[in-house]
Parts: sequence; C-alpha cells; structure tokens
Amino acid sequence: MQAINNKGLLAQFIDQVWNNENLEAVNDYVAPRYTIYHDPGDPWDGQSLDLAKFKERLTQSRSAAPDQKFELVDMISESDKVVAAWTWRGTHLGDIAGIPATGNTITMSGLTAYYFENKLLIGHWQVADRLAVYQQLAG
Amino acid sequence: MQAINNKGLLAQFIDQVWNNENLEAVNDYVAPRYTIYHDPGDPWDGQSLDLAKFKERLTQSRSAAPDQKFELVDMISESDKVVAAWTWRGTHLGDIAGIPATGNTITMSGLTAYYFENKLLIGHWQVADRLAVYQQLAG
Repeated sequence: MQAINNKGLLAQFIDQVWNNENLEAVNDYVAPRYTIYHDPGDPWDGQSLDLAKFKERLTQSRSAAPDQKFELVDMISESDKVVAAWTWRGTHLGDIAGIPATGNTITMSGLTAYYFENKLLIGHWQVADRLAVYQQLAG
Repeated sequence: MQAINNKGLLAQFIDQVWNNENLEAVNDYVAPRYTIYHDPGDPWDGQSLDLAKFKERLTQSRSAAPDQKFELVDMISESDKVVAAWTWRGTHLGDIAGIPATGNTITMSGLTAYYFENKLLIGHWQVADRLAVYQQLAG
C-alpha cells in the first residue's frame, strides 16, 4: 500500500473541508498553526490561525455561498508544495465584502500555493479573481 | 555542465522578456504557438499566438507601465510545468483597460502556471489581482 502523496491529500482537503464543510476533517489536514501568507481580500490575510480560528474562517467564508464548490483545473507539486489552479462556483446567499445576498450564481478562478509540513497544511499564498466577483454582484 | 532547468529558463524569460522587453529573447523561450489558456482581463485571453503576435502583446502590455517589474516570490516545478507566484510593480503611464495614465505607482500580485514543451513555453494559466489595480487607479 502506497501512502497518499501531498496532491492526493490536497484533493481530499478541498473536497471534504471546502466543498463539504466537514469541520472534523480539518484536524486531519491542517497543522495547529496555519498561516495565510498572502490572500488579498481574505479578512484573515497575513494572520496565523489555530485550528479553532481556521474552522471559524471556514464556516464564515462558506456562509456567503453555502453551495460553493471548488473544481481543480490542475495541480503542480514539488517537495512540500502543491499549487492548485481552480475554478469556484456558488450561489451568493450571504454577505461578500459587505454586499448582501443577491441570489446570483457566481464563478471565480484562482491559484493557490499550498505549503505542507509532515503531511499537514501549514499555510497558503493565493490570488483569486476578485474583480470577476464584483462584476457579477453588480450585474 | 548541467543544462538549465525549466525554473531557470522561466526566471530568465521573466527577466529578459517581461522586465526588460527584449523582443529578440522571445524566440529563445517561446514556442511558435503559445496559448493563453486562462488569463481574465488579458485582451488575448483564450487565444493562441504566433511569435509575432506574442511580441505585439508584450509591447502593448508593457506600454501601460514601461518601468514594470515582476518579482518572483516562489517557483514550484513539476515535469513540464512551472508555477510562478509573483508581485508586480509599475508606473501607470498608458491605458489600462481604458483608464488613461494616472502616473500612480501600481502594485499587483498573481500566480501563473507556465507550460513547457521541449524547453519552450507553450502557454499559461494565470490569475492576477485585477481588483487591486482598479482600486489603485481610482484612489
């Protein structure tokens, strides 16, 4: 039996944690200290989170679009890093950057460099196409 | 003597082609057909370019901020793919998406997945923080 590699772990993390809000699964993938190195627009940008804070961020981020799904377009892995190129889709049912629910279906794209240590995620460096989101909320 | 790897080639490409607008160097790094798989906001998004079109895109993109520089924050490489995480800085001296020169210094961040074939670049999948640019032009 071959141990799962970082790409496999990341795919499971995205599916279980971000696409299905499985709070218990967070402990399986996220280190006790998780740093958001760069993520413009994210309210936690620049912060280091413990598991409780990570779950708070997850719940709060997902409440804006409870049916949200990330779809992985590509994954590129080297040593303890995995980059995911992704598209995202969700229905806008809660506040996004102060804009109340519109009911619009929103799509967004981005790339995230995820950093592992001992098979646990210790942080990320991400850029998402925030302008596309604003254009869809205004439209 | 060890041949230069894709990461080394990408760093040279960014420096010579994007940071210094060396049109002749384009031929050393870019394949005869280069595809912009995904690059929201780029006027050539979705298109495949020959070398002449690539140079036209380079010249036109650079004219908006002739002193522009990409700084590589990280590179993650796997087989024929190299992802660059970057920050960008330039002085706004030409049209950006219809907004005439403001003279503002603009910073932007993004990630680009670059695809190689036989040591030449055949395309990219990119997301940049366009919203940050608009905010700096409006400010």
